[in-house]
Amino acid sequence: MISIVILGSGNVATHLISAFQKSNEILIKQIFARNPSVSIPDFPQEKIIHTIDQLTDADLYIISVSDTAINEVANQIPFNDKLVVHTSGSMPIDILGNKNRKGVFYPLQTFTKNKEVDFKEIPICLEAENENDSTLLANLASKISNKIYFINSEQRKAMHVAAVFVCNFVNHLYQLGNDICTENNIPFEILHPLIEETANKIKSISPIDAQTGPARRNDTVTINSHLNFLNDNNKKEIYKILTKSIIDNVKKL
Amino acid sequence: MISIVILGSGNVATHLISAFQKSNEILIKQIFARNPSVSIPDFPQEKIIHTIDQLTDADLYIISVSDTAINEVANQIPFNDKLVVHTSGSMPIDILGNKNRKGVFYPLQTFTKNKEVDFKEIPICLEAENENDSTLLANLASKISNKIYFINSEQRKAMHVAAVFVCNFVNHLYQLGNDICTENNIPFEILHPLIEETANKIKSISPIDAQTGPARRNDTVTINSHLNFLNDNNKKEIYKILTKSIIDNVKKL
Repeated sequence: MISIVILGSGNVATHLISAFQKSNEILIKQIFARNPSVSIPDFPQEKIIHTIDQLTDADLYIISVSDTAINEVANQIPFNDKLVVHTSGSMPIDILGNKNRKGVFYPLQTFTKNKEVDFKEIPICLEAENENDSTLLANLASKISNKIYFINSEQRKAMHVAAVFVCNFVNHLYQLGNDICTENNIPFEILHPLIEETANKIKSISPIDAQTGPARRNDTVTINSHLNFLNDNNKKEIYKILTKSIIDNVKKL
Repeated sequence: MISIVILGSGNVATHLISAFQKSNEILIKQIFARNPSVSIPDFPQEKIIHTIDQLTDADLYIISVSDTAINEVANQIPFNDKLVVHTSGSMPIDILGNKNRKGVFYPLQTFTKNKEVDFKEIPICLEAENENDSTLLANLASKISNKIYFINSEQRKAMHVAAVFVCNFVNHLYQLGNDICTENNIPFEILHPLIEETANKIKSISPIDAQTGPARRNDTVTINSHLNFLNDNNKKEIYKILTKSIIDNVKKL
């Protein structure tokens, strides 16, 4: 049994808590939430604490708060030499300060409120300062996921940038596609199978080999006809820069 | 039984042929391929013709060649008043000229050589000039797919632009993410579950509600740290323009 305390009650914290609760080898001893009105499904209200000095003893303290609050929360933990980890993709391990042993427990996924995800498929990216702590984190991660990676702070930063490209930016392109459909009375669902296949394809073919479309073919007639069609400057600029990037890339092949 | 002739042997033609072959209510009478060395799996070589004047009688002629060749092939068909369709997302119906009855049979998907796709889930976008032809095309489409849409030429053009955003551009962002991973010794597969969830999410939540990440939060600290991290000008510019587009969009909410 691994005993843990979660500090935070936001989006990532809530999804982690729900995943931990499904394992009978993990005991969530407390949840620390600043907001006194927080309640967590299937978690006893009396174990949700609102002042940090009520913190109890545990094998591991998981700080899952906004990036800018991690350091402050870490400094307020009223213990020394405990294992304290954060769950952020963009913050280095050192943001946790030196009062306690440090680590990172970063689930690489896009979490949306009220949308459950299958944690078994979520890569958990771990970092720790010594072998014992690494073992404990890997042990904990293995209770909720099949995909465990040790990733140092520098790599995690790169990975987070890559994640912004393949998730946040990709989703924004979905939105621009959605806008174009709406403006032309086309149901956006017509694009769903294409979106799905595009995402599936790169599991078996590298993205560079999977590239299709007018830019890939350097088909300037279609490219210009699309640019003429787009009357919104923002979409036009995005179309231009991504088309140029694909064409430049093909040239390198 | 619907009898058809396919004119073309490229990527889209090959995938269509393979889908039609699976139905015993469709008879492919001939395939016209300019290249004399073309062979099609499970299709009799003697029915592959290389000069267009050998064309036989059929219910429907499907021209599946590159956009710039459609008009030329349509003009060379040695018949009048037959139903002739093309399979292009970006070309209007009128490109087919006036010798024959016109139509469009556009499967909206990204086709990659040697990667089979489940046609049942592929939206087939149809256009025709009269009700009889519409019925024939819908009938044919229903033999290979569950998703049939009637889309006029103007809408199809809009849809094709939207498809470039959600497929071609998205795939390029996958590639940029892949590049960042490779440069930092991170296995790209670590991003696969994130890519999959991002694509799945928009089936149940609109893209604007699914948006996450530093730009969505207007988190300038993380945005600047990512821009400092990116040493490649092209990636930096793409990061900037998409971040700005997300931020501007959030402001409109």
